[in-house]
Amino acid sequence: MTPKSLDDLQLFINKAIESTNYGFNPENLYDPIHYTMSMGGKRIRPLLTLICCQLYGKSIDKAIPAAMALEIFHNSTLLHDDIMDNSMVRRNLPTVFKKWSTNIAILSGDAMIMLAYKQLNQLEEKIKSSVFETFNKATLEVCEGQQYDLDYEDDFQVRIEDYIKMIRLKTSVLLAASAKIGAIIGEACKEEQDLLYSFGENLGIAFQLQDDYLDTFGDSAVFGKKIGGDILAGKKTFLLLKALGLSKGEYNAQLIGIINDTNTKPEVKVEQVKEIYKNLKVDSITIEYINRYFDKAKESLAKLKLKGLDTTLLTEYSEKLSGRKY
Amino acid sequence: MTPKSLDDLQLFINKAIESTNYGFNPENLYDPIHYTMSMGGKRIRPLLTLICCQLYGKSIDKAIPAAMALEIFHNSTLLHDDIMDNSMVRRNLPTVFKKWSTNIAILSGDAMIMLAYKQLNQLEEKIKSSVFETFNKATLEVCEGQQYDLDYEDDFQVRIEDYIKMIRLKTSVLLAASAKIGAIIGEACKEEQDLLYSFGENLGIAFQLQDDYLDTFGDSAVFGKKIGGDILAGKKTFLLLKALGLSKGEYNAQLIGIINDTNTKPEVKVEQVKEIYKNLKVDSITIEYINRYFDKAKESLAKLKLKGLDTTLLTEYSEKLSGRKY
Repeated sequence: MTPKSLDDLQLFINKAIESTNYGFNPENLYDPIHYTMSMGGKRIRPLLTLICCQLYGKSIDKAIPAAMALEIFHNSTLLHDDIMDNSMVRRNLPTVFKKWSTNIAILSGDAMIMLAYKQLNQLEEKIKSSVFETFNKATLEVCEGQQYDLDYEDDFQVRIEDYIKMIRLKTSVLLAASAKIGAIIGEACKEEQDLLYSFGENLGIAFQLQDDYLDTFGDSAVFGKKIGGDILAGKKTFLLLKALGLSKGEYNAQLIGIINDTNTKPEVKVEQVKEIYKNLKVDSITIEYINRYFDKAKESLAKLKLKGLDTTLLTEYSEKLSGRKY
Repeated sequence: MTPKSLDDLQLFINKAIESTNYGFNPENLYDPIHYTMSMGGKRIRPLLTLICCQLYGKSIDKAIPAAMALEIFHNSTLLHDDIMDNSMVRRNLPTVFKKWSTNIAILSGDAMIMLAYKQLNQLEEKIKSSVFETFNKATLEVCEGQQYDLDYEDDFQVRIEDYIKMIRLKTSVLLAASAKIGAIIGEACKEEQDLLYSFGENLGIAFQLQDDYLDTFGDSAVFGKKIGGDILAGKKTFLLLKALGLSKGEYNAQLIGIINDTNTKPEVKVEQVKEIYKNLKVDSITIEYINRYFDKAKESLAKLKLKGLDTTLLTEYSEKLSGRKY
């Protein structure tokens, strides 16, 4: 079997998502599901599953149900998260709860969880339990991460360890599970399954921290979003929590004051906060953290390479995800 | 193995529910789960699973994970349904969304779905896929039923077939799956699995229709709820939909008028609607329907008895559920 390129795998997963029958009646349950699944997105989770399965020379067809399960589940969390965050727009389209209703978004999200699990039952018997366990653990942890995120919303004293734990649960474990599940289907040994889990986990944390960084210090043309959105929304990002942790007394109060201030012009507010971040060296500290997690992910790949595996595609994947060369 | 009595099985399932570790952190995710699972309830789904497993002489220990999955899933639907129906109280306690928040009720409900599926992975390999498929199909259908219920809320022209389809999906399929899953774990043949599914399905429909009937024509002392609640809430019950279907012209408009009227005293309103129901013979028609579904459930039991199975406990269970002698 000739291994597929990253682009080919991307096309392959897009086609699987398009051709899946999610169901039809009642329309108010299934239309939002079709709408959500066809909204697009980078499909980073199912893509990683296919890459990791292919890494072991196994046919990616075997991994499609699991890849679909991961993508459907991820999208179910978007429906529910959008309600919780009161988000009106996603990928330039109205969110499900906005376009239909909160009740419909709750219920369609629930149905998507069932549809995700349904996919898993199509897997081969010999790997089903192991995939199921990995998937189930990750999906429960995603709920835990989202709850910590809600808990931290009004808390100015969240510790950096707790913040990283939160993003690990909310974002990274599902990427980690995507990698590990690909390895399980590829019939990798336990050690390599764990290395791929660790790769996905650390890449996910690095990616999320980078997202925090770019929202404040990125180039809006490259980042694709307006710079400073997190500051204006008063979001508890890594940057803000680090700055709050580092600043003392009056300076700390001043920072909280600016964040809570609704009278200052947005541009001015963003500049004021950026200034404080720079004074506290939060920008370079954040980059250190990002590098640390990227390095951990790279270490896992190096170990896999030592074991004779061709990790080229995983490196390409990391570069595509992070927009940085490895 | 001496078969356990209905009371013993009830104690057994209650103990399993109490001693299950649902998780602890974050507290705002897991506290509502413990709260919900310890609220009590009749536990009719897990009980049916145990009865059906025991029917085949198999140890009920084998069925506990599946019984737990059914009860946890059922409770997850309560958390989400209470948000959708804006219900403040359940079993004399504030509902989760009222006591905590809507966001927490969404998320804890989601986590309970994962916890339900987690239970299934503890089942023996040889029956796991079959139980999983039955469970997954039912959980998706419950979502479909709830969506039909929401769709019908403001519709005065729902056909009786559609109403029955809705209650079948929303309520009965999970009871049917509970019975079938017990049979699968008991290693029953396909034919008997289907008979037990059909038993649960028809019993569930009969029970739901009886609930509609008793809300209007029951004895409040026996029923345990105030009579006429459905009429006052303008709920689209079997009785109302049947009455709307049978009444014509002015009489039909009069009925809708009374239902929508907010000025008449509650007692008067209930009496007026009951009068119309009686004139249209909706009370006896409803009883005919209830009997028809109870009879179908009994037919399944008779077939199982013909095959040499001791269905005593299933009859007891039906009697307990319906409050009527078989």
